[in-house]
Amino acid sequence: MNLLNKTINSIIPISKEIILLTQKKQDNLTKPRGAFGRLEDLSIQIAGAQHTTIPKIVDKVILLFAADHNTVHEEGISSAPVDVTSQMIVNFVTTKGAGINILADLFGARLIVTDMGVSTPYPPNLNIINKSIRHGASNITKGPAMTKKEAILSLESGIEVFNIEKKKGIDILAIGEMGIGNTTPSSAIISVVTRTSVESVTGPGAGIIDIKIRKKIDVIKKALEINIIDISNGIDILTKVGGFEIGAMSGAMLAAAASKTPVMIDGFIATAAALIAIKIAPDCEKYLISAHSSAETGHSNVLDFLNQKPLLDLGMRLGEGTGAILGISLAEAAVKILNNMSTFESAEVTKAEERNSL
Amino acid sequence: MNLLNKTINSIIPISKEIILLTQKKQDNLTKPRGAFGRLEDLSIQIAGAQHTTIPKIVDKVILLFAADHNTVHEEGISSAPVDVTSQMIVNFVTTKGAGINILADLFGARLIVTDMGVSTPYPPNLNIINKSIRHGASNITKGPAMTKKEAILSLESGIEVFNIEKKKGIDILAIGEMGIGNTTPSSAIISVVTRTSVESVTGPGAGIIDIKIRKKIDVIKKALEINIIDISNGIDILTKVGGFEIGAMSGAMLAAAASKTPVMIDGFIATAAALIAIKIAPDCEKYLISAHSSAETGHSNVLDFLNQKPLLDLGMRLGEGTGAILGISLAEAAVKILNNMSTFESAEVTKAEERNSL
Repeated sequence: MNLLNKTINSIIPISKEIILLTQKKQDNLTKPRGAFGRLEDLSIQIAGAQHTTIPKIVDKVILLFAADHNTVHEEGISSAPVDVTSQMIVNFVTTKGAGINILADLFGARLIVTDMGVSTPYPPNLNIINKSIRHGASNITKGPAMTKKEAILSLESGIEVFNIEKKKGIDILAIGEMGIGNTTPSSAIISVVTRTSVESVTGPGAGIIDIKIRKKIDVIKKALEINIIDISNGIDILTKVGGFEIGAMSGAMLAAAASKTPVMIDGFIATAAALIAIKIAPDCEKYLISAHSSAETGHSNVLDFLNQKPLLDLGMRLGEGTGAILGISLAEAAVKILNNMSTFESAEVTKAEERNSL
Repeated sequence: MNLLNKTINSIIPISKEIILLTQKKQDNLTKPRGAFGRLEDLSIQIAGAQHTTIPKIVDKVILLFAADHNTVHEEGISSAPVDVTSQMIVNFVTTKGAGINILADLFGARLIVTDMGVSTPYPPNLNIINKSIRHGASNITKGPAMTKKEAILSLESGIEVFNIEKKKGIDILAIGEMGIGNTTPSSAIISVVTRTSVESVTGPGAGIIDIKIRKKIDVIKKALEINIIDISNGIDILTKVGGFEIGAMSGAMLAAAASKTPVMIDGFIATAAALIAIKIAPDCEKYLISAHSSAETGHSNVLDFLNQKPLLDLGMRLGEGTGAILGISLAEAAVKILNNMSTFESAEVTKAEERNSL
């Protein structure tokens, strides 16, 4: 709890002063004002998060957290067997041929994979950080997903992984996940926090059929009946209907905000984790940038709740942080424009105000 | 006319066979089917355009064409003086601090600047290809923008510039422009081709005020009354209400299609040029990929007409090909995923069909 409290207490709001100064800097670049649209807003948000008018994006890191969920396997509502989580994290660090590997390589980002509680054993001595709490969160139709102690441990594990990598350099963070069945706890979290119906936030996940979606809705409803949740308390939400990887994702977000690092979040599970992080420390919200709309039912509920519009809407629904890394590519472009584009003075181009007086 | 006809006759449709084979290739990658959303469709379209199931994007080129438009200056409806076109193309090749320079550098693309008819002189011996037809297209409220001979020359100039660069290597093309006042002819072209009202396709361009927009609408209406246009004839549309840079853009699109090269188009002016290219050679359409929605009024009319949904919608309205180069970055990601991601066999991950039978 010490590390968590220390992290929460270190979070300060993104800098309003820097935001104003960066807006001025944007307006003096050789283009009609606002011509780069949302890339301008993005550069300004990143400047505010990094607390400098000269933000930089050189070290790009993807923290990917993996864990299993006993709910979906015991209740029979998953599209894939439990061992796929384990197979995929091995794939991330051995064949390196998963979607996120390809994009990390293309955009020059470091990918760090952490086991937060994968059920199926995998070979030892792989490049996977072992923070396993236990083999999958508990069945939430029968009680809480984890104990409060485990929830805090999952948050602090995310903080620890972030802090170690931060020492090696992180200018912007993407957060990804792998966990068969983790749309189920995510739907539960989103329903609870946004106070919208379970039906409106429950979709097919990685591809279950309609009849299973109805079953999934029943499972989530049962979980929300059995577990009495204090919705003002992020740790309680995580404890009751979360997951170990979700806790670690929330923890990494808190640690990023505490060290003035902007975070790209994509999709359904990352957004659920963001809700928990924001419940725990509201000032972290403006450090979080919504990279990609999820095709999953109910993602729009959260986006409305957070008043965010994702940068991209490409119909992706893979997870792993693939949407977030595409968002980082846009952030890199936005920051390069802010820092490197000519000003009207340097380029000897007539500025709009002068033009209008002609 | 020989070069133009030769180019048109060389265009064959994108390959349906390759599209089917590439779809199969996509479906065997280690992800739920369709999980990369529009990036999957994008990779398949690029494969079809390049006529290979192993498309590649290494050589990325931006062809930027510049010219002036006497209409807007004589009629007083521009936000900027005429010499800004010249100032900006000098900026592109000397200070290299324009928006498109920054993005070309970031994404590793070659930027080729061609003067198709800029009005204001600039220093000699700059890295600008001189294909100037004359100093700005004519005032379209008083007659055609150019002669038919000039229209063909502008198309063939675009083809020539493309063909020279293609020999150095072009896997994917972005087409940009610079021309103060070129939203005016673009609105005229879009109104004529999509058969929608001038009001619905006329906006503020780089930032004129409301009263000037009303004047701009009147100017375009007058141009469409004075010029009798054969709307089935792309060359006639270009002649009557086009511009020299617009003709070159259309020509480059035709040349790209003729050499099986996909083209990213963004924004308002590039889309108007695309309409002319498609009128001239309908088979070029599927080689064109819409990269970015323009914030300019009426862009949606063209997109509906072409049944296209741009990859990005970031509210950008700078031109120069800035939206197109961001689109190329997504294309590169899409192609890398298609070619480099593990298949279910190679990664030893359980495939969805097998999962469902469990």
